[in-house]
Amino acid sequence: MPYVNFRVTKEGVTAEQKLALIQGATELLQRVLNKNPATTFVIIDEVETDNWGIGYENVTSLRAQAAAQAQKA
Amino acid sequence: MPYVNFRVTKEGVTAEQKLALIQGATELLQRVLNKNPATTFVIIDEVETDNWGIGYENVTSLRAQAAAQAQKA
Amino acid sequence: MPYVNFRVTKEGVTAEQKLALIQGATELLQRVLNKNPATTFVIIDEVETDNWGIGYENVTSLRAQAAAQAQKA
Amino acid sequence: MPYVNFRVTKEGVTAEQKLALIQGATELLQRVLNKNPATTFVIIDEVETDNWGIGYENVTSLRAQAAAQAQKA
Amino acid sequence: MPYVNFRVTKEGVTAEQKLALIQGATELLQRVLNKNPATTFVIIDEVETDNWGIGYENVTSLRAQAAAQAQKA
Amino acid sequence: MPYVNFRVTKEGVTAEQKLALIQGATELLQRVLNKNPATTFVIIDEVETDNWGIGYENVTSLRAQAAAQAQKA
Repeated sequence: MPYVNFRVTKEGVTAEQKLALIQGATELLQRVLNKNPATTFVIIDEVETDNWGIGYENVTSLRAQAAAQAQKA
Repeated sequence: MPYVNFRVTKEGVTAEQKLALIQGATELLQRVLNKNPATTFVIIDEVETDNWGIGYENVTSLRAQAAAQAQKA
Repeated sequence: MPYVNFRVTKEGVTAEQKLALIQGATELLQRVLNKNPATTFVIIDEVETDNWGIGYENVTSLRAQAAAQAQKA
Repeated sequence: MPYVNFRVTKEGVTAEQKLALIQGATELLQRVLNKNPATTFVIIDEVETDNWGIGYENVTSLRAQAAAQAQKA
Repeated sequence: MPYVNFRVTKEGVTAEQKLALIQGATELLQRVLNKNPATTFVIIDEVETDNWGIGYENVTSLRAQAAAQAQKA
Repeated sequence: MPYVNFRVTKEGVTAEQKLALIQGATELLQRVLNKNPATTFVIIDEVETDNWGIGYENVTSLRAQAAAQAQKA
C-alpha cells in the first residue's frame, strides 16, 4: 500500500502526462516491490515557479534566463 | 506539538467540514497522546482529481465511472 | 481515498496509541467527508526530539526545562 | 542535496519574500552543513487560512479575532 | 527539477530495489515531462508497519492475518 | 504559524548543527514574514544515503565515487 508524491513545477502539465506519471509509478511499485495497485496512491503537486528555488534562484528566473539564452543563440 | 496533514481530493469540501477535521484531529491527539492543542497544527491539502491516482487510474475517471454506474442503476 | 500524516515526537508512543490515532483519523474522515476506510491511509512519523524545533529551541531542551521546573515545584 | 519545504498561510506573500526564504534557507544549509546550493531545493507551499488549524481553530477565525481586538484598542 | 517521495512499509526493501525505484522514477520524469535527471530528487521513506494504517487496522495486523490465512490454505 | 521541513542525508549531522538549522529557519521566517517563533515548527528528517537518489544514482554511490576521486588526486 505505497504512497507516491510527485512535486513538479506548474508549467502546463496535461491530464495525459499526469496519468502517465500515475501509471508509471504504479507499474514501477508493482514490478519492483510487488505492491498491489488497488492500494497504491499517487499524488502530483504542481508548484508555482516563484515558489520553487534551486541554487539561490527561483525557477521563474531560471526559465527567463534560459529563454534569453535561447533567443541569443 | 504535533503536526497533522490531511490530503483529500478537491471536491467541494466546505469550511465547516475542514473545521471539523481540524477539531477532530486536535481532540484525538489531546485524548490519545495528551498533546497540547495550542501547539497542534492541522493542515488540509486539497488535491485536484486529475492529480490523484489509485489502481492505475486518476480519480477524475473513477468518479465518472461511478456516476455512469449510478445512472444505469 | 484520503491520506493522513501525523508527525509527533518520538517519545515512547505505543502500538496501541498509534492504532488509536489510525482508527480515530479514519473514523473522522468517514464521519465528516464520507470517505471509504478501505482506501484511507494513515501514516505516523515519529521524530527525534533533537530534530524538532519550536520557538528557537529543540524539543530535547524544552523537555529538560520542563523536568527541571517540575523538580523545583 | 537537501530539500526544504516551507508551509505558510496564503496571505499575500510576495515573490520577493519567497525569494528571500529561498536564499536564506540555501545560505543556511551551505553555512551549517556545507551543502551545495546547486542541488538545494526549496519549495514554498501557501495554504489557505481555512485549511490551517491550531488550537481547535482555523487561521481565518484567528485573524478575524485579532482584527476585532485591534479595532477595539 | 522534480522531487519524488515514495513511502513504503519497512519490510526488508533491499538497496537494489531502492535503486530500481530511484532509476524508474527518474526515467519516468525524463520520458513524460522531459525533466533533467541531474536535478531529479527521489527520496524513499520506509515506515514501520505499526505506523501505517488502512481500513481501521495497522499493517502489522494485516500481515499477521494474511500469514494466518496462508497457513490455513 | 509556519512549518518548515528540512530533509538531508543521514551523515552524522550533530545536535548543534540541527539546532543551527532550527534557529536559522525560525529567524528567517521572523525577519522575512514577521512570523511568531512561538508557533514556528521546524522538523529535520535525516534520510539514509541508500534512500536518496539524484541523477539515476543513490547518494551512497555518489559518496563512494567522490571518495575514490579524492584518493586519486
